[in-house]
Amino acid sequence: MVRSRADRPVSSVDVAAHAGVSQATVSRVLSGTTPVSDATREKVERALDELGYQPNVNARALKTQRTSTIAVVVADITNPFYPELVEALNEALSAEGQMMLLWDAAIAVDDGSVLAAVQQGLVDGAIFATATRGSTTLSRAQQLALPVALINRGMPALDIDSVTSDNCSGGRRVARYFLEAGRKPAIIAGPEIASTSRERAEGFLAEWRDARPDYEPFITYKEFSAECGREFCAAVMNSDDPPDAIFATNDYTAFGVLDEAKRLGIRVPQDTWVVGYDDIPMSSWSVFDLTTVRQPTGQMAKEAVRLLLARIETRDRPIESIRFDGELITRGSTASS
Amino acid sequence: MVRSRADRPVSSVDVAAHAGVSQATVSRVLSGTTPVSDATREKVERALDELGYQPNVNARALKTQRTSTIAVVVADITNPFYPELVEALNEALSAEGQMMLLWDAAIAVDDGSVLAAVQQGLVDGAIFATATRGSTTLSRAQQLALPVALINRGMPALDIDSVTSDNCSGGRRVARYFLEAGRKPAIIAGPEIASTSRERAEGFLAEWRDARPDYEPFITYKEFSAECGREFCAAVMNSDDPPDAIFATNDYTAFGVLDEAKRLGIRVPQDTWVVGYDDIPMSSWSVFDLTTVRQPTGQMAKEAVRLLLARIETRDRPIESIRFDGELITRGSTASS
Repeated sequence: MVRSRADRPVSSVDVAAHAGVSQATVSRVLSGTTPVSDATREKVERALDELGYQPNVNARALKTQRTSTIAVVVADITNPFYPELVEALNEALSAEGQMMLLWDAAIAVDDGSVLAAVQQGLVDGAIFATATRGSTTLSRAQQLALPVALINRGMPALDIDSVTSDNCSGGRRVARYFLEAGRKPAIIAGPEIASTSRERAEGFLAEWRDARPDYEPFITYKEFSAECGREFCAAVMNSDDPPDAIFATNDYTAFGVLDEAKRLGIRVPQDTWVVGYDDIPMSSWSVFDLTTVRQPTGQMAKEAVRLLLARIETRDRPIESIRFDGELITRGSTASS
Repeated sequence: MVRSRADRPVSSVDVAAHAGVSQATVSRVLSGTTPVSDATREKVERALDELGYQPNVNARALKTQRTSTIAVVVADITNPFYPELVEALNEALSAEGQMMLLWDAAIAVDDGSVLAAVQQGLVDGAIFATATRGSTTLSRAQQLALPVALINRGMPALDIDSVTSDNCSGGRRVARYFLEAGRKPAIIAGPEIASTSRERAEGFLAEWRDARPDYEPFITYKEFSAECGREFCAAVMNSDDPPDAIFATNDYTAFGVLDEAKRLGIRVPQDTWVVGYDDIPMSSWSVFDLTTVRQPTGQMAKEAVRLLLARIETRDRPIESIRFDGELITRGSTASS
């Protein structure tokens, strides 16, 4: 067993010494350009293996210009929607022989470092799952024509490939569902700078205002977090005029609403309905049993990977925006009338 | 705005052309070795900025041998314990000026690729959160003396720096809690190849057998998943001799137990107690209200980062194993008698 604690990688010189051949012979075996006897080749290959020799990828990447590695950028993996999306992307990338590196942009990591990684050849391209309006990183990515794609959150103002679900029509669907049941809703939305949050809330309000211009639902834009759902639930349910339906623009926030309702002794769906968005696996658990709009995460991930790999191959292909439909899944957090 | 769709990075030649100077002048500005007039420097710097020039990191890494980037390897980020641990590591790395790249080893990604990344200089070292007994990757890491550290799951047989919590004594603590209350427990453990799962279950059983050699608790080793908790709950609670206390060796599995109990109309804690392990934030939610053993994730992450950075600096320093104590947090899923 070799226990070199030397502070440097194994070199072809080490391999040559170990195999008892010249360094030129090791190079010939590695490059495969000049014939070498079988016995010598075996000796060198055994030494390469025993020493754990690895060609320096930095040197190699300088030649090939490809790493078959894709960066995925998320901002909040403690929101359980993102681990599901990341798993779907990992699966889709893996099916295409690509490795995934995850940039967790939650703390201190400027997502601009991802662009540097693309420019510097550490990764071949990047998929952003948590784009926000006004992102200088993404406008810079467009300006520099780097291979990036968006998933989940779109940036309509930028020429960047994107895969989203039709959040606006999903929001409209929830509004129609409440309208048909004669509910009096309130909305807890995520950040206004996230397209998902904005489109779901605006879709809901557009549909609602067409039908009920006399009643304007109370709406708050906050974070996509359980904590915000909890605070919102306590505030509106304790107000003078509590709603009897709450639309949270993502499931994680809806969990917070449900959790606080349970704590306050508010019965769901008898006292208030609760509807989320995403349909993450936990939403079907009996402790939540949440009515929600499903995002087809697996299909979205496959399309995002396809678009990005096509962009890496052909930089000047036309920009594509793919939009999936969202289905309303009704469960126990709303009554089927 | 520059919209070059050329399939190659911006080079110093491009910068020279854009600035209207020679390439040698650009090199002089970049290296800072030879004086250049202020006017020329400004012209070149403007061109560098406008074209988004980035020095090739592969070429640069060949010189510096450091990337200030650390790989973190997890196998299952849909288990909500891991996003919490990853966030804690991201925070700890960020405080040390390090970037985190996450390897999601769930699907198809051989975690051996992480060692290659270390050997090839893409990252300076790696932290493994989901080590499993018999892992060839980790014995190879030891053999090659690569800078790696373990967090959460240890590998006592290997000489690798590790930070764990005292799972054995945590398991003992749960057994004592059940013994004092005169409960008749069953255990749903995670995979036997994970040290966390094995030590928690074995600690529990050792403590239990000392006190109650007449009653052997039913135990099953499965996965760390909610689904396994759900199946286990249905199986044991529908058996001829149901337990009145269930110890799940992680919180996510305990959630599955609680969820299935609710579905089956089994009351917690009246019909059965449920105890988990980890104390992830969701465990304190009123829908779960789970008694559990707390792992000090934040402190563990800081120590793991400290050990790895020390190892990168000094390859031949002695191996350290740090073990934190785990506290029993009692909540509504057990009765305080």
